[in-house]
Amino acid sequence: MKNFVYQNPTKIIFGQGTIQQIGKEIKKHGIQKVLMIYGGGSIFKNDVYDEVVNSLKEHGIEYVEVSGVQPNPVLSKVQEAIQKAKEENVDALLAIGGGSVYDTTKAVSIGCHYDGNVWDFYEGKEKPKSGMPFFGVLTISATASEMNAGSVITNEAENKKWSCGSPVMYPKVSIIDPSVQATLPPNQTANTAIDTMAHVFELYFDGTEDVDVLVEYSEGIIRSTMKHAKILLEDPTNYQSRAQLAWCATLGLNGSNGVGRSGGDWASHGIEHSLSVLYGVAHGAGLAIVFPAWMKYVYSYNIDMFERFAEQIFNITEGTKEEKALKGIEELKSFFSSLNAPVTLKEIGVKYEDLDRIADNAAMQAPHGAIKKLYREDILEILKIAYE
Amino acid sequence: MKNFVYQNPTKIIFGQGTIQQIGKEIKKHGIQKVLMIYGGGSIFKNDVYDEVVNSLKEHGIEYVEVSGVQPNPVLSKVQEAIQKAKEENVDALLAIGGGSVYDTTKAVSIGCHYDGNVWDFYEGKEKPKSGMPFFGVLTISATASEMNAGSVITNEAENKKWSCGSPVMYPKVSIIDPSVQATLPPNQTANTAIDTMAHVFELYFDGTEDVDVLVEYSEGIIRSTMKHAKILLEDPTNYQSRAQLAWCATLGLNGSNGVGRSGGDWASHGIEHSLSVLYGVAHGAGLAIVFPAWMKYVYSYNIDMFERFAEQIFNITEGTKEEKALKGIEELKSFFSSLNAPVTLKEIGVKYEDLDRIADNAAMQAPHGAIKKLYREDILEILKIAYE
Repeated sequence: MKNFVYQNPTKIIFGQGTIQQIGKEIKKHGIQKVLMIYGGGSIFKNDVYDEVVNSLKEHGIEYVEVSGVQPNPVLSKVQEAIQKAKEENVDALLAIGGGSVYDTTKAVSIGCHYDGNVWDFYEGKEKPKSGMPFFGVLTISATASEMNAGSVITNEAENKKWSCGSPVMYPKVSIIDPSVQATLPPNQTANTAIDTMAHVFELYFDGTEDVDVLVEYSEGIIRSTMKHAKILLEDPTNYQSRAQLAWCATLGLNGSNGVGRSGGDWASHGIEHSLSVLYGVAHGAGLAIVFPAWMKYVYSYNIDMFERFAEQIFNITEGTKEEKALKGIEELKSFFSSLNAPVTLKEIGVKYEDLDRIADNAAMQAPHGAIKKLYREDILEILKIAYE
Repeated sequence: MKNFVYQNPTKIIFGQGTIQQIGKEIKKHGIQKVLMIYGGGSIFKNDVYDEVVNSLKEHGIEYVEVSGVQPNPVLSKVQEAIQKAKEENVDALLAIGGGSVYDTTKAVSIGCHYDGNVWDFYEGKEKPKSGMPFFGVLTISATASEMNAGSVITNEAENKKWSCGSPVMYPKVSIIDPSVQATLPPNQTANTAIDTMAHVFELYFDGTEDVDVLVEYSEGIIRSTMKHAKILLEDPTNYQSRAQLAWCATLGLNGSNGVGRSGGDWASHGIEHSLSVLYGVAHGAGLAIVFPAWMKYVYSYNIDMFERFAEQIFNITEGTKEEKALKGIEELKSFFSSLNAPVTLKEIGVKYEDLDRIADNAAMQAPHGAIKKLYREDILEILKIAYE
C-alpha cells in the first residue's frame, strides 16, 4: 500500500422515492437559482423531470434549463451551458441524468469559475481551483460520476475525448433512485456492468503490490456486478438487483478501491475514448471490445494478478499460470458477449484499414498504461487483437 | 438493500511520515489554539508527541494538553477535558492515540457545545446538534473511530459503558501512519484484528437480505484482516501488513459496509461493554470471548449467513448447513485463540456466580440485537456458553 489522501465529501441519498428530496438538499446550501442540465426525453417519460421540478418549486428554488447533453458529451454543449449559467446568474447547477450529464455539469462548474476556455483544464494547461456548487439526480448508473471528481468531455473539433479531475469537482449531493433505471434498455444495463467492471480492472491491474485488502474488495464488486447484471437481463424490473448494481457502479470509481494504489492503468480507457470519438460507440460497448484485447497483450506483465482474476472470478483452477490467465480473459470476453455487448471492432463497423487512424488518435496521449507503457505500435497491436 | 444516506466527510491522510502534516491541516481550518488529548506515555516513546508538537509550533498553533485517557475511556476524564477546553478558550481539539482517545475527544467536542451534562447524549436524552471541530493522529488501529461518528464512554459512577453517534461527530482530518504501530505489543495487534472482525460481523449478521455486494466486501475485509494479523504476530515490524490491517480496521466501521443494511446487530458489543465495565477487560479481548458464544446462541436465526461465513472464510464445504455453521464458529474461536486472545470468561477471572451480575448490567439496555432480540435470560445463556 502506498501513502494516500482520501476525502470524498459527496452526500449520497440512495433508494426508492428519494428524488423528491432534491429541493430540500439544495435549499440547505442557501441556493436560490439553479441551472438544470439534462439529456434527452427519458426524464420526461419516467417522471423524473416532474419530480425534480416539483421539488424545486416546493422549496422556492428558481430554475433554468439546458438540455440535449449526449452520451459522450461534447465541449460545445459545455460552453453553451456555461454561457447560460452566467447569463442567468445561477448560483448552482443540477445534473439530471447519467455520467454524460454529470461530466458535463462538472465541466460547467469549473468553467463558470474561469475566464478562459474550460478546455484548458482538459488539456492540462491549468488546474481548476474552484467550481460553482452542483448537485445531481442520477438516472443511469455506470460511471460513478455521481460520487467522484472526474469528468470526460469530447472536444469535437479536435477529436479529443479527454479527462479532467480535481477535488473541487465533487457533487455536493447525489440522489440515486435505482427504481428509475427499471426501464433502461438491456444494452444500457450491459454498459452499466461493463463500465463498472472496467473501472475496477483499471485499478486491480495497475501493478501495485501489497494491496490485498483492495484486491478482495475489487473482486467482491466484480462478482456482484456480474451476478446482478445477469439477473437484470432476465428481469429488468428487479429492484434489489438494480440497487446492488447501482451501488457497485458507484463503488467502482468513487475512490474507495484506489486508495494505496498507484493510480490505475487507464490504457484501456484511453484507447476506448478514441473509439468513442471516431465511431460514436457507447463507452461500455467500446470497453467490452478493448479490455479483453488489452489483457491479451499485457497479461504477462502482471501474470500473478491475471491468474488470480481467473481463479477468483471464473473459478479456473487447472493449468499453468499462463493457461489460467488466458482462460480467464476468454471467459471475460464470453461474459461480455452474454450481455450482448460487441466484443470485436468488426462488429461495430470498424474496417481493418481504419486501425491506424484509431491508433494515431489514441497515441496523442501516449504513453498509456501502468503495467505496460503503451505507445502507438502497442496500441495498434491491441486494436488488431480486438479486430475480430 | 434498504434506502440509505451516506456521507463521510473525514479527510484521511495515510502512510509513512504523514504525522508532520497535522499542523498544516489544522491551520487550513483557521484554528489558532488546540487542546491535545492523549493517553499515557507511548506517544513519548515513539516520537509521535514530538512530531505533533513540532508541527503545531511550525504552524503557529498554540496548544494545551489533557493526558491520562485510559482504554475504556471514562466520563470523568471527558468532563475534565471539557472544562480545560472552555477555560483555555481553545477553538479545536486534537486526539493523539487510539479509539479511546478519539472517543473521548468526540465526547469533549459535543460537550463543549452544550450547557448540560455531556452524559445526556449517551443516555439518549438529547441529540448533539454541533461540536467543536476536532482532528486526530491515530496511533492504534481497531475501532475505526478515526473515520466514523461514534463514541463509547464509560460512566464509572453508574457502571454504564454506552455509546453516542451523530453526523456532527466526524473528525475533520485523521492522520494514520501505520509505522507507529510497529511497536505495539502482540495483544494489541490481536485486539485490532478482533475489533475489526467484530465490527464487520455486527453488520454481516444483521439479517438484511439482498446485500450481497456488501457481503462480498465484508468477507474481503475479514480475510485480509486475518491474513495480516497472522503475519504481524510473527513479524511485527512488517509495514505493509500494518498498513493493510490499519485500513481494514478503518473500513470495518467507517460506514462503508453498513450502507443499505439495517443498522447492525450489536448485541455482542452490548454484552462486551458490560464485561469491560465490570472487569476492565480490553475491548478486543472481551469480543473474542463474547462473539463465538453469541454466534452459538443465535446462528439458527440466520443460518444461511452462518453457513456462508463458514464456507467463505474457513473453506468449510462438507456437512449440513448446521454442521457447517457450527464448524465455522469453532474455527473462529480457534482463530482468536491463535492470536492469544482469551476465548472464555473463566480465562479472564470471571466466576460462574458473577454471570448474573454481568447479565443484569447488559440488560439495562435490553433488548439487544437484530437477528435475535436478546433479553436478560438470553444474555445469561450466552454468558454461560462463554464461560469455559
